[in-house]
Amino acid sequence: MKKAIILLSGGLDSATCLVIAKEQGYKCYGLSFKYGQRHQFEIKSAKKLARHYNISDHITMNIDLRKFGGSALTDNIQVPKKRNENKMSKEIPITYVPARNTIFLSFALAYAEVKDSNDIFIGVNALDYSGYPDCRPLFINSFEKMANLGTKTGINDSSIKIHTPLINMKKSEIIQKGIALGLDFKMTHSCYDPYENGSPCGECDSCILRLAGFKQAGLNDPLEYNQ
Amino acid sequence: MKKAIILLSGGLDSATCLVIAKEQGYKCYGLSFKYGQRHQFEIKSAKKLARHYNISDHITMNIDLRKFGGSALTDNIQVPKKRNENKMSKEIPITYVPARNTIFLSFALAYAEVKDSNDIFIGVNALDYSGYPDCRPLFINSFEKMANLGTKTGINDSSIKIHTPLINMKKSEIIQKGIALGLDFKMTHSCYDPYENGSPCGECDSCILRLAGFKQAGLNDPLEYNQ
Repeated sequence: MKKAIILLSGGLDSATCLVIAKEQGYKCYGLSFKYGQRHQFEIKSAKKLARHYNISDHITMNIDLRKFGGSALTDNIQVPKKRNENKMSKEIPITYVPARNTIFLSFALAYAEVKDSNDIFIGVNALDYSGYPDCRPLFINSFEKMANLGTKTGINDSSIKIHTPLINMKKSEIIQKGIALGLDFKMTHSCYDPYENGSPCGECDSCILRLAGFKQAGLNDPLEYNQ
Repeated sequence: MKKAIILLSGGLDSATCLVIAKEQGYKCYGLSFKYGQRHQFEIKSAKKLARHYNISDHITMNIDLRKFGGSALTDNIQVPKKRNENKMSKEIPITYVPARNTIFLSFALAYAEVKDSNDIFIGVNALDYSGYPDCRPLFINSFEKMANLGTKTGINDSSIKIHTPLINMKKSEIIQKGIALGLDFKMTHSCYDPYENGSPCGECDSCILRLAGFKQAGLNDPLEYNQ
């Protein structure tokens, strides 16, 4: 059975990635990060998903990106609220965490080598993507090339593949895909700045994109907002 | 004053990189890793170098690569001893840590973005390089391309540069360069598997390459071996 490493943030996108990889017949290994983000609710969601889908192993790496700072997600900078959805992708927002996906993919690459896997899944999305440079196909393709030059696996047969099944999907399509594969989105967590009890704020970019996605899909988000 | 991030392992190569960057006029920021390696002597050396050269900041990141394992440096696998120097580069040795330089460079990239720096120095060496895939120019060039696609800095002006001043130098030439720039190699640590008091073993690949380098340069290694 072919193996895959799934970058599992606990969000809507990575959860959909996991069910897609399972549908494609992969034996799945999850990888999550405590990177100094503002809260641990997404890690709880990732663990819930890992248990629910009975994946082969789930590693949570501790990497303290607060040592660098420089983002509203890892520093004492306020998370923007109530931004207009259409304006979001025009600029790189303050919630961008410097080189985060490069770091996450690098660890996934190490994990893949150790597990003799050539396949890494990441739920990046270039349409409703909040303007992050490290969610673009150009970046992903470039990372894949680099990965095949910098690892034992890659040198042997250039077979490392970064799978981005969501990259050209709209948020509403991702949601529909997840639902079609039986995913319960109640297990996922997307909010950048939740209330103390974990309830999503409904006003950060991530909540706005999520809510718009459900609306466009003609579905209700099972999460309870502003509680 | 232009700023540079220096990947500072505390070894002979990274120490030479640091003095080269300083000579080139960079304001230097050091980055070291506790990655689950067999010992902390190289971190001690990195700190010593950072203090001695009075660099602007020195961050040590904790990343537990033992969670993945798969290398003699991060797992319960014996470090090879007394290998023939000429045979070393014919294969990828068991001391190869999966994707290690990719991970280190990714963190350096994050640090560079936060510090508004476009320059990263890494002491990789493709001649006496112990056969690691992630020490080759092909890999470094590819990482640089990827870095310029996946970051805010890169998107703005494609100006991120991965400096590898040692890449085409023989170990003996690196040592001569360091000496010429006033570097005291007693501050550095290269051994993969030192004695409990930090004394280098003299028999692992890293010690063998280092000793051969000093011999070829017609110099004495100031470290005391096998004590």
